[in-house]
Amino acid sequence: MLAEADLGERRVALVPEMVTRLVDAGHRVVVQWGAGAGAHLPDGEFVAAGAEVVSSSDVLAAADVLLAVNRPPAAVLAALREGTVLLGLLGARGDRTELDALARRGVHVLSLDLLPRTLSRAQTMDALTSQASIAGYRAAIVAAEAYQRYFPMMITAAGTARPAKVLVLGAGVAGLQAIGTARRLGAQVFGYDVRPAAREEVTSLGAQFLSTPLDAELAAAQAEASAAGAAEGGYARALTPEESARQQAELAEQVAGFDAVITTAQVPGGRPPVLVTAATVAAMRRGSVVVDLASGPSGGNVEGSVAGERTLTESGVTLIGAPNLPGDMAAASSAAYARNVVAVLGAVVSDGALALDPDDEVVGALLVTVDGATDDIADETADDSMEVNA
Amino acid sequence: MLAEADLGERRVALVPEMVTRLVDAGHRVVVQWGAGAGAHLPDGEFVAAGAEVVSSSDVLAAADVLLAVNRPPAAVLAALREGTVLLGLLGARGDRTELDALARRGVHVLSLDLLPRTLSRAQTMDALTSQASIAGYRAAIVAAEAYQRYFPMMITAAGTARPAKVLVLGAGVAGLQAIGTARRLGAQVFGYDVRPAAREEVTSLGAQFLSTPLDAELAAAQAEASAAGAAEGGYARALTPEESARQQAELAEQVAGFDAVITTAQVPGGRPPVLVTAATVAAMRRGSVVVDLASGPSGGNVEGSVAGERTLTESGVTLIGAPNLPGDMAAASSAAYARNVVAVLGAVVSDGALALDPDDEVVGALLVTVDGATDDIADETADDSMEVNA
Repeated sequence: MLAEADLGERRVALVPEMVTRLVDAGHRVVVQWGAGAGAHLPDGEFVAAGAEVVSSSDVLAAADVLLAVNRPPAAVLAALREGTVLLGLLGARGDRTELDALARRGVHVLSLDLLPRTLSRAQTMDALTSQASIAGYRAAIVAAEAYQRYFPMMITAAGTARPAKVLVLGAGVAGLQAIGTARRLGAQVFGYDVRPAAREEVTSLGAQFLSTPLDAELAAAQAEASAAGAAEGGYARALTPEESARQQAELAEQVAGFDAVITTAQVPGGRPPVLVTAATVAAMRRGSVVVDLASGPSGGNVEGSVAGERTLTESGVTLIGAPNLPGDMAAASSAAYARNVVAVLGAVVSDGALALDPDDEVVGALLVTVDGATDDIADETADDSMEVNA
Repeated sequence: MLAEADLGERRVALVPEMVTRLVDAGHRVVVQWGAGAGAHLPDGEFVAAGAEVVSSSDVLAAADVLLAVNRPPAAVLAALREGTVLLGLLGARGDRTELDALARRGVHVLSLDLLPRTLSRAQTMDALTSQASIAGYRAAIVAAEAYQRYFPMMITAAGTARPAKVLVLGAGVAGLQAIGTARRLGAQVFGYDVRPAAREEVTSLGAQFLSTPLDAELAAAQAEASAAGAAEGGYARALTPEESARQQAELAEQVAGFDAVITTAQVPGGRPPVLVTAATVAAMRRGSVVVDLASGPSGGNVEGSVAGERTLTESGVTLIGAPNLPGDMAAASSAAYARNVVAVLGAVVSDGALALDPDDEVVGALLVTVDGATDDIADETADDSMEVNA
């Protein structure tokens, strides 16, 4: 395992507890010096767990399997030998050029963002979920920290402070975790998602589901149709472009009334949708806080948010561009990630040797393949003393 | 009201809502330009509430009553005229030299830290409580933000994350609020206070009361004495110096086992006791967090904490010196403080004129008096159009 190269990345792909598990299973684990420093994991703990702590070039020289959190830099990718396994959140849904080139060279590229998340077998491997969960929890903590008032209602002798009104846009794993955490803190929480099915998940956490007038109209129409026997129990139909625009406009109007807004609408490998425009931000109360989990180089959910920065707008709203909240909780996120990674290793290692079966529903999904370059993967196995270079 | 002069102080003694109340009561309110900026209160909101927004010298020229959060700098104190009222958290329990000099010059110095807090009449005026409550809430948020793992227990497909173990030392207003907030976040919370009576308050919040072996021995001895009819229902006796030392040593041993420790043992005007020594910090787990609310120029509860800074120790423990957490939540703390201040004004103003009655149990307690210099305060009243220079 190498230290992560991304600037500011504090996570690491393997933690001592998982090193022990791999070593106990007969693998050799090689870790780059200082790889765990950002996650409060000193080299000594890796050594105590049975890893060899060496230079990055020694890691690469020994690597049969290279574990990573983010996609390693080009120099590392170039050093990977044919037959090596590269496993991480490699961003295969984004720009795949580098990964395709690796696959063509015979590197087995397993990108965790391709995991079939609905398979029950895959749940222990689901790094997207484990990291999104941390991001959502932390988004609520960060919002509470940046907000200059209480989240909970406070009743004191000198008067009552009303609870903060918090809105979470997007009710995926991160959104639901943000909702739950803001609720724990006593805020008045609303959730929203364009998927009508999200309503139940949001309300089951004790939060309210934000409803635009259009949503209410559509729900009424659906109920009517349902009563008439049509579309019973089915999903709502897709919105027309006009309806979609109206939904956005109505949503924007309501967003401005919140004290804290957390946006979580990420699109794997794509440009995130703008959910909160500059005009909406300008309409928010002074002292409000917006946390944008989708913030990144290609923009975010919030106009004006800058990845990794806190921006105070002219009208006194704090915009927090938070693309890597798991990285700010590196001890927890590394521990969870390492568990996911070791679970994947269980699916690609058999009797101490690499055995990638592209017909396996998990392995087949994770594998980045190109021009049939991975056709005979199943037959390629490393020697028995496989080295897991985490 | 002047802007606060203390570096980094974001609070302000009056908020627009309270300006309205004072103006409605017939007072003139004069506010320094930009005084509310740190609390997200622009001058326009003060003007809309009926205040005049002017320069600091104009404020001082007009002042019959000067409202402050912290003690104003020497230049401002020097400019206060005889008969003026100065009201704020002036630190009368600390170095009183400046305040005594003011009182000698005939300035009516009302220091909110002298408030008789047990009087029910005084509860709406209790700025120490309102600010300590915010400090306690925020201490838990800051600890959660600095800690690299979850506070709550998290059960996921890939494994369970145990809840953080949080210890709050000192069970006053701030300590109890920190306990409550850490509990809200799902942490496993322990409280401790040298006052045995605090046990009930801590446990009523769902937290556990930390018990040293000595505490257990003393409790058993007291129970025995109580059963024998002696000291029934009474407080435990004071500890001998030897017992006190043993209590500290036993406490230190337990402190090292916590993920996050929040210390709240402030001594008004005095040097705070060291509750967590450097040796204890060194014995804590890597990644642990200590928030020291007593941190200040004369030290704090935690050896190595620096006021206003985050220090990462060599052994990977984060020490946070947090002397002014209310200042980091200036919107809430200013609003609460302003309510307290206006409640005090109600006790010193009668029919629109100043009427300080030193025999009043609240006013008498707040007044900084020296050499009988305030003997005839009751007779000194300002003119009818009293100006509240908040």
